[in-house]
Amino acid sequence: MRANQFTDITYEEFRELPPKAKAGFFNVAHRPYHTLVAQQFDRTMLDRLSLLATQIRRIAKSKTGMHFLNQMLEHRRVMLYFSQPSSRTFLSFYAACQILGLKVAEVRDTSTSSEMKGESPEDTVRTFSSYFDLLIMRTPQQGFAEKMAWILSHTERPVPIINAGSGKDQHPTQALLDIYTLQRSFEKTGGIDGKTVVFVGDLARGRTVRSLSCLLTNYNNVVQHFVTAEPLQIGQDVLDELNAKDVTYHVSNDFEAIIPEADAIYMTRIQDEWDQIPGESGTIDISAYAFRKEHLTKLKINAVLMHPLPRRKEIATEVDSDPRAVYWRQVRNGMWIRVALIASTFGVDTQIDEYAKLNLA
Amino acid sequence: MRANQFTDITYEEFRELPPKAKAGFFNVAHRPYHTLVAQQFDRTMLDRLSLLATQIRRIAKSKTGMHFLNQMLEHRRVMLYFSQPSSRTFLSFYAACQILGLKVAEVRDTSTSSEMKGESPEDTVRTFSSYFDLLIMRTPQQGFAEKMAWILSHTERPVPIINAGSGKDQHPTQALLDIYTLQRSFEKTGGIDGKTVVFVGDLARGRTVRSLSCLLTNYNNVVQHFVTAEPLQIGQDVLDELNAKDVTYHVSNDFEAIIPEADAIYMTRIQDEWDQIPGESGTIDISAYAFRKEHLTKLKINAVLMHPLPRRKEIATEVDSDPRAVYWRQVRNGMWIRVALIASTFGVDTQIDEYAKLNLA
Amino acid sequence: MRANQFTDITYEEFRELPPKAKAGFFNVAHRPYHTLVAQQFDRTMLDRLSLLATQIRRIAKSKTGMHFLNQMLEHRRVMLYFSQPSSRTFLSFYAACQILGLKVAEVRDTSTSSEMKGESPEDTVRTFSSYFDLLIMRTPQQGFAEKMAWILSHTERPVPIINAGSGKDQHPTQALLDIYTLQRSFEKTGGIDGKTVVFVGDLARGRTVRSLSCLLTNYNNVVQHFVTAEPLQIGQDVLDELNAKDVTYHVSNDFEAIIPEADAIYMTRIQDEWDQIPGESGTIDISAYAFRKEHLTKLKINAVLMHPLPRRKEIATEVDSDPRAVYWRQVRNGMWIRVALIASTFGVDTQIDEYAKLNLA
Repeated sequence: MRANQFTDITYEEFRELPPKAKAGFFNVAHRPYHTLVAQQFDRTMLDRLSLLATQIRRIAKSKTGMHFLNQMLEHRRVMLYFSQPSSRTFLSFYAACQILGLKVAEVRDTSTSSEMKGESPEDTVRTFSSYFDLLIMRTPQQGFAEKMAWILSHTERPVPIINAGSGKDQHPTQALLDIYTLQRSFEKTGGIDGKTVVFVGDLARGRTVRSLSCLLTNYNNVVQHFVTAEPLQIGQDVLDELNAKDVTYHVSNDFEAIIPEADAIYMTRIQDEWDQIPGESGTIDISAYAFRKEHLTKLKINAVLMHPLPRRKEIATEVDSDPRAVYWRQVRNGMWIRVALIASTFGVDTQIDEYAKLNLA
Repeated sequence: MRANQFTDITYEEFRELPPKAKAGFFNVAHRPYHTLVAQQFDRTMLDRLSLLATQIRRIAKSKTGMHFLNQMLEHRRVMLYFSQPSSRTFLSFYAACQILGLKVAEVRDTSTSSEMKGESPEDTVRTFSSYFDLLIMRTPQQGFAEKMAWILSHTERPVPIINAGSGKDQHPTQALLDIYTLQRSFEKTGGIDGKTVVFVGDLARGRTVRSLSCLLTNYNNVVQHFVTAEPLQIGQDVLDELNAKDVTYHVSNDFEAIIPEADAIYMTRIQDEWDQIPGESGTIDISAYAFRKEHLTKLKINAVLMHPLPRRKEIATEVDSDPRAVYWRQVRNGMWIRVALIASTFGVDTQIDEYAKLNLA
Repeated sequence: MRANQFTDITYEEFRELPPKAKAGFFNVAHRPYHTLVAQQFDRTMLDRLSLLATQIRRIAKSKTGMHFLNQMLEHRRVMLYFSQPSSRTFLSFYAACQILGLKVAEVRDTSTSSEMKGESPEDTVRTFSSYFDLLIMRTPQQGFAEKMAWILSHTERPVPIINAGSGKDQHPTQALLDIYTLQRSFEKTGGIDGKTVVFVGDLARGRTVRSLSCLLTNYNNVVQHFVTAEPLQIGQDVLDELNAKDVTYHVSNDFEAIIPEADAIYMTRIQDEWDQIPGESGTIDISAYAFRKEHLTKLKINAVLMHPLPRRKEIATEVDSDPRAVYWRQVRNGMWIRVALIASTFGVDTQIDEYAKLNLA
């Protein structure tokens, strides 16, 4: 793995680059070294990771296959540094690491760290990185994982970093799992190209929506709908990007009308933890942006209903048992695509290809 | 393992069944699938688990044997979900899982979970279950582990659940370790049948006492004594059950008088964390219900002194070094019986039998 | 491993022995059984551990070598009991255990332990010790790890204890990593003998300074300088010990003057968490006791600049990239010397010697 991707650029210059332009610093020969922004993944990489994830889960079905996976990275150590709490993402990464045999250590409560003793966050993370071969970081600060990648790349012992969520900003592995879920859901119906994807809920603040909307531009003729109450509508910056790429999209507030057209409906919850005035979201009437049991009859037979979870009332629990409700599968997909990503980061994906060729019919 | 034990019953119907009647839903062919209530274990299962635990600890004595155990379930992942704190039970299960090579992940501080984001506890646990092959749960809510077992059994991916303590209600593995301790203590003196067991302390609220009293009815001619101050006496419901099963028991408040008759004395601490009026237990005079050094001379030579721990002043530390004080061995027994239970849950107990047959003299 | 080192002495007698005199109780045939005080390590042991650490890190460079190390103690379980928070020391030990394949469990938040239920700390730790083969403890109480070592040695199941920091008192593995860093830094310039070591900063309260000063008396002709503002100067007890051993030392407050003489400069931060009156350290002018970029020109070409970290402003970050700044290497050295210590504690160090002889050129 190449260490000094950042040699010819200062941190201040680097920081100001648009996400897409950073891909050259994060990827090495179509493999992620650092995984920091959703935009660093192009169609080739997305197809590759999806295929790899599917191979891995097939290998994992047998005890022999699981043993093969388990020994793959057992000589490596990873740290999960979660200074922003998230049991869901934490456990998904944890299980993914375990599947590859990685030895995992964790810091979840950073109040027990040296930060208390007046150390800079950069020194803290550099210290922790000394003991491990990979850092998986979730932080409330935008850009911190990127900054650490830049700093560590200028030391004697750089290690790859995976961003597991940085503030309102980026959560690239969530975007990967959403793409992987769409890819698997449409495996027998022509793939993602040409499909209609409907985003519903808190489009203004949901980083998952922003990232997925962006990654979908890697596919051909995907139509995007943004359906929600006015104050929660998608940002103009996202629409500008879609315009620049000549992507067809529609902005509306009539959820019921759009259901029959959708190949995928992506529901999201109100992210009131980001309210600038506490409780301000509570005054918005969102009752029309929930998927109820009676909506199932309007939904295409091959469509899928997605949700990044956790949910509140956006989807009635009675819907859970419908085969088109794939949000629980999304959770499992998240684990498998993370296994694929980590295998790819350490460059052991080719060993998986070989094993699959020899052992899967 | 059979997944749909609950097919023909609604949750509301299921919930109202008496504990013993639930055994048919939790056990599969005399093996636990879910371990949720002490009452699901009959004599056959108790004897089986005790034998298995003893075989396992003998196998574990050699490095080769430990390696055999360590590879047994290394392709499986378990989650310890402890929303009610208990380092003692947590570490016992943790070590038990490690002995079988299970890869363990944990959630101990549930304030870091998605519950904060308005998710239902059922969704939270279902999400976590997606990544793992076994859930071990400790919760303050009565019946929550049971409810999750019912919910997961109705999904595409059911997993077994072990109840590691649910409120004031059930703590089935504590009951198993108590039975195992009695079984080992009386190995050379005819087993548990016919013995006299004396319960002392907070009998009203100690779930360990209630569960052990119940499991002892699986053995022949065991006499039970309940000895404590009046406000802490055993509940009438327990006595009703003993009456129904024609078990001999005695209720009294004279601890000193009963010591010479006991084959096992089971001391417990005052559980003042359950006080309805804070501090109310403090007004009860319990000084007579402590085991002091001078009591050792009154105790039968083959009797045993037990305590589920933690202790306060119920047993003087000077007693610890007497060979009849088995509470520290109880702690170790707890780890080994949990290894046996988990092995049994995954159905690898027969491999252990074979290994023991070939390798233990 | 010998268990009953304490047979002929009461705890009260034992406790009052000077640290050096305790070595006979902690070491067995020049190997640590318990690691509790820096003073228990003599020159033979320090040389041995340093050599072992260097062998181990060379072995770890290949995947085969790492697999050899990983299987070494995989049949053993260790508990990290950190009732005083320290992510840095915690992760260093955690990674060290993982390298040897030890199965690790942890207790970091002791508010979740049975201490809440009125249990004595001694009972709590004895319970936890039942599940594991090694305890690594960090506690705010002085002497607690020692007390537990004495208590466990009088039970049926003693286990070794490593002190990972006990209050203001002892932090023996920090002292080991400092010695190892000096040994490696001077490998090609004649070793530690004859060198000049300068201590700077909070010498009154820094336990790392006290321990390292003491361990350096195992080497020949080392000159020690203590350079800081008056209120933070080294304690008279340390100087008395140096006098007793006829060690040359100097006490001064002129940092700039001493830089050109130093072979090693050991910077430390103000430990204001130990202030008796909160904020009292803040009134001391320490601006003269920081290493700035311009000091590099005064520093000998083969000298090293050390810091136990975390740092505040004692060393400017611009100094980090100078090859003489070894504090980031110190962090890695800490992990490797802990691997060596644990291997030595379990007596598997001779297997490492053999592997090294056969496999390292």
